[in-house]
Amino acid sequence: MNTFGENLRLTVFGESHGEAIGMVLDGFPAGEDIDLDKVKEQLARRAPGTGELSTARAEPDEPLFLSGLLDGHSTGAPLCATIKNTDAKSADYRPEKPRPGHADLASQIKYKGFADFRGGGPFSGRLTAAMVMAGAVCRQALERRGIFTEAKIIRIGSAESTQPDFDFALRKEILDARASGDSVGGVIECSVSGLPAGLGGLMFGGMESRIASALYAIPGVKGVEFGAGFEFAKMRGSEANDPIRLEDGRLFTETNNSGGINGGLTNGMPLVVRCAFRPTPSIAREQKTVDLSKMQNTTLRITGRHDPCIVPRAVPVVESMVEFCIMDAICGS
Amino acid sequence: MNTFGENLRLTVFGESHGEAIGMVLDGFPAGEDIDLDKVKEQLARRAPGTGELSTARAEPDEPLFLSGLLDGHSTGAPLCATIKNTDAKSADYRPEKPRPGHADLASQIKYKGFADFRGGGPFSGRLTAAMVMAGAVCRQALERRGIFTEAKIIRIGSAESTQPDFDFALRKEILDARASGDSVGGVIECSVSGLPAGLGGLMFGGMESRIASALYAIPGVKGVEFGAGFEFAKMRGSEANDPIRLEDGRLFTETNNSGGINGGLTNGMPLVVRCAFRPTPSIAREQKTVDLSKMQNTTLRITGRHDPCIVPRAVPVVESMVEFCIMDAICGS
Amino acid sequence: MNTFGENLRLTVFGESHGEAIGMVLDGFPAGEDIDLDKVKEQLARRAPGTGELSTARAEPDEPLFLSGLLDGHSTGAPLCATIKNTDAKSADYRPEKPRPGHADLASQIKYKGFADFRGGGPFSGRLTAAMVMAGAVCRQALERRGIFTEAKIIRIGSAESTQPDFDFALRKEILDARASGDSVGGVIECSVSGLPAGLGGLMFGGMESRIASALYAIPGVKGVEFGAGFEFAKMRGSEANDPIRLEDGRLFTETNNSGGINGGLTNGMPLVVRCAFRPTPSIAREQKTVDLSKMQNTTLRITGRHDPCIVPRAVPVVESMVEFCIMDAICGS
Amino acid sequence: MNTFGENLRLTVFGESHGEAIGMVLDGFPAGEDIDLDKVKEQLARRAPGTGELSTARAEPDEPLFLSGLLDGHSTGAPLCATIKNTDAKSADYRPEKPRPGHADLASQIKYKGFADFRGGGPFSGRLTAAMVMAGAVCRQALERRGIFTEAKIIRIGSAESTQPDFDFALRKEILDARASGDSVGGVIECSVSGLPAGLGGLMFGGMESRIASALYAIPGVKGVEFGAGFEFAKMRGSEANDPIRLEDGRLFTETNNSGGINGGLTNGMPLVVRCAFRPTPSIAREQKTVDLSKMQNTTLRITGRHDPCIVPRAVPVVESMVEFCIMDAICGS
Repeated sequence: MNTFGENLRLTVFGESHGEAIGMVLDGFPAGEDIDLDKVKEQLARRAPGTGELSTARAEPDEPLFLSGLLDGHSTGAPLCATIKNTDAKSADYRPEKPRPGHADLASQIKYKGFADFRGGGPFSGRLTAAMVMAGAVCRQALERRGIFTEAKIIRIGSAESTQPDFDFALRKEILDARASGDSVGGVIECSVSGLPAGLGGLMFGGMESRIASALYAIPGVKGVEFGAGFEFAKMRGSEANDPIRLEDGRLFTETNNSGGINGGLTNGMPLVVRCAFRPTPSIAREQKTVDLSKMQNTTLRITGRHDPCIVPRAVPVVESMVEFCIMDAICGS
Repeated sequence: MNTFGENLRLTVFGESHGEAIGMVLDGFPAGEDIDLDKVKEQLARRAPGTGELSTARAEPDEPLFLSGLLDGHSTGAPLCATIKNTDAKSADYRPEKPRPGHADLASQIKYKGFADFRGGGPFSGRLTAAMVMAGAVCRQALERRGIFTEAKIIRIGSAESTQPDFDFALRKEILDARASGDSVGGVIECSVSGLPAGLGGLMFGGMESRIASALYAIPGVKGVEFGAGFEFAKMRGSEANDPIRLEDGRLFTETNNSGGINGGLTNGMPLVVRCAFRPTPSIAREQKTVDLSKMQNTTLRITGRHDPCIVPRAVPVVESMVEFCIMDAICGS
Repeated sequence: MNTFGENLRLTVFGESHGEAIGMVLDGFPAGEDIDLDKVKEQLARRAPGTGELSTARAEPDEPLFLSGLLDGHSTGAPLCATIKNTDAKSADYRPEKPRPGHADLASQIKYKGFADFRGGGPFSGRLTAAMVMAGAVCRQALERRGIFTEAKIIRIGSAESTQPDFDFALRKEILDARASGDSVGGVIECSVSGLPAGLGGLMFGGMESRIASALYAIPGVKGVEFGAGFEFAKMRGSEANDPIRLEDGRLFTETNNSGGINGGLTNGMPLVVRCAFRPTPSIAREQKTVDLSKMQNTTLRITGRHDPCIVPRAVPVVESMVEFCIMDAICGS
Repeated sequence: MNTFGENLRLTVFGESHGEAIGMVLDGFPAGEDIDLDKVKEQLARRAPGTGELSTARAEPDEPLFLSGLLDGHSTGAPLCATIKNTDAKSADYRPEKPRPGHADLASQIKYKGFADFRGGGPFSGRLTAAMVMAGAVCRQALERRGIFTEAKIIRIGSAESTQPDFDFALRKEILDARASGDSVGGVIECSVSGLPAGLGGLMFGGMESRIASALYAIPGVKGVEFGAGFEFAKMRGSEANDPIRLEDGRLFTETNNSGGINGGLTNGMPLVVRCAFRPTPSIAREQKTVDLSKMQNTTLRITGRHDPCIVPRAVPVVESMVEFCIMDAICGS
């Protein structure tokens, strides 16, 4: 299922070294202003090569809208946007030595050896640029409705945002990892303010189900929690429950352990979700693997430039998936 | 969306104090033996009143299969099974004082005051019995295919399964919470062994997206992680990547930080997922809330018997949602 | 796929001689009055045994709503309603001699011999009672919005509604067919008035796609056309196009060849759809078939009472499927 | 819903005068050979300007595959293919005078005036080129499985394929219509041979529901029937039922009134479906309409070149939609 969403439907397509990647956003309301510069801004935040913390590969990430957009507004027809893969090398890559932490082995079995393995094929983080294009369109529609989404890094390795020198420590973690031919993971927290209460639905239509499903589609995500999340497990109900209060005619809760969601529905407080990323599996160090052509144990050293940490580039991707889910829920309310 | 699944589709319906709850399981293959006693066994694990740790309410939870089952095997037509609500009190409950931690306020807005609020209505944990009926049917089909699913509690409050006296500590946490009119949360870990490699799909069809979506439909779940999960954020790639090895003609990984999933596809190792539950929001202690009829701050004391901890009863529910997702993926492979 | 619909989702389950048949209607708005007597009225129009034109089997068709309904209004949770199968005989029927015109042969292959063949199993016309329950709920919501749906028979065998003595001829066709151990087909026309313009969507979301899909789920339907339908093929554009006019501030078309739909969208004129039913395949006459156990040609004489014409009973079923589709489109607009 | 299909999912996007049109085909099996020349062949059959019977507009219809295709075979990732709109004139067209027979009025209401009306926008027959690309990919996979699909014109206006001089009469009907500034409708019949028995599913998953839904997405289709279709209404069961026979170990039916489908499932006989097309609504003659800016009755004369009959170009489109549906059913079997 490369199509997702209930009222708004997002279809993502493409492979890392194919002709292009792209997305189709169907069900988006007519008459919404879409500023392409704002789409490019979000893409730029995801782009590599923008600093010492990421790879230097030059991808222009120039979005081309093929449909659904006329004179700067949405037409109500499906929006399709693509980005050409310009920096691709067509070397035929066969994963005879499956890379640890990657889907090489599983995808060879699933796709009977016919998958496009070049640069990770359809499993590549490159596909997240398509997610960002969809999210950047939703972001504009949400902001016009007073709904603002912002994600930020709260952990990289042992650096935590609660530390006073977090920015410095974060950079140090990444640069240390790179220096030792290694990589490092992290956590991104995303908050949404301005949400009306009552978005979402019952059961599998709850906001947590939808958002988690979308976030787990981002390569590298291995954990998703809302509000107090895993900390809830250590709490008593009397501290976990958010007291409901009224002030100046406005209902709110004194704390926000629920992360803005109760019973799957938004409750009017900021929605708070966090997701954990594993360290980039592609590292320069020698790793144990198996040579499938000879069926014997061997080792592998992955060459080429790779991000020592994908977390900084994933920030707008997380925002985009959350924004898509919020807009989807709004379209159905 | 009360319907979920790609190849196998689960529809859940019902309200806590309505006539009945139930589920429709569509797409289940014909000719699978279904033993009703095994369905009752899983329901019994979820049932209340079976010990000092839960409420004494007597629900028989007698499953009635209306369709799709003939002479002990599935017919290929949709399986519908219901459970009557016998212990329901029909007192009309209007949530003038929304209960902290519950969906009272959000659902009143969403359903314009027409929701069935009796006993939590469609948000009630009672609906999880429908999930268990579906899961217990899938469980039998999976076991015949050599796939075994087992969930267990790994944390209750400050009691952790790594402690030598975990069983004792777990009981103590729950009984202490009850004694103080409070409740407590916890974490359940679920493992699936015997899985083939290559189950799942790209993007939103990845196993993590599907399973997380299903688990978040369980009331009280606020965190879901796979394999090393949030711990990945603290790791380096060199320790996070699972080395691939070959022994006696069998491919495996030396560690299983990935929790049996890479790039959304099963890799043949045991699938490991954990989910965090919040403490039961219904507690006996006085809580701050708002009287919506008078629009003024007030307090609320919830009466009646409530589970001080839903985690023990949720174990077969977690298994059921995972089993449904695995069976769904198998039906599409 | 026993689940259908975009914004409103209908799941139908059951087998002719199983415990019960039923439906789940998900996404229906909260706060709609639902009068069970009106549901029973529509069911009564579909019921057998109400005259000389149909079988005398006494099915009470008593709808039991299990969820989604409280104090006479919808709650916003899925509506589940069932009807018990009381008149079923449990004789184990194995279709060794597949009945011509039935799905016996195809379903044995599809369901590997495990299908419930008693009384037609899941292919039985009995399932249409579940469709009627869903339609009767939608019908009430539509009528409150000023939208009225009415179906009628326009052909039975050689009797056409354009004939002055249609009612008499229609009865004669059916009674003649019965007298000769035979059956007869017919055409039903369904009209919907009071529709707003702009319902429906692009491509596969067009009203014709949705309604045709729903009507073809009714057993025995083999043709569906809108407006002038197949007559369009004989027409010129100058006579086929409906001239647009304005009178007293109201836009309308002078003719309605389009049947109220252009480009998949309602245009504000009455929606007109017709569907053709094949003659009931179960007839008393001897028919050629094959004995699958001996793999040799043979003949078959179907015993028991069967409707010589299902068309009269199908009228509320056609209305119901159309009403579901209209309500689905309204829920998404 | 611009996405359609159960196991295989087709998403169509684009507008007549936008940047490009295209499709995403998701769920297509890996390892299927795809010959682009065969895709172009089917596109060429749909292309305009190939004879005196259609418009002379030169559209190259060059398919560009962006993903899912590598070294001539499918990779298992979604196939996306686009066609640039080169012949488009960007004149801003506002449908102040809605054209009779078109969706102008309905779409203005639905899309609040923001739709792309240039050349029919998303309602244009141009979109059928995207359908053909998807169908041409499925066609190759089906032919490798021994399944062959062929559509042909069986009526244009008063010319019927049962007439000895059909080809001549067909041309005459179209040229006469053109000469008088008019257009004419027709009927296409599509047959599929080599199908296994048991494809399709219950209820809304029946082959008739799926195929009808897909065919009604083609602009201009107003009637769809299977096998004897509307003729069934005039028949007795004894002539309508197809006698089942065995010869040389092969099961078949002596007649094929059912059109290869019973109870929604294929029965192993050729699948036969017919669809009726309305005359092209764009005609050169003066037509009655309303000036929406002045809100008064007026007339309209549509200029530019238009096909006097779209039926000849629709033949590969009908094949494509049927092929998509068959391949979808096969992917789920």
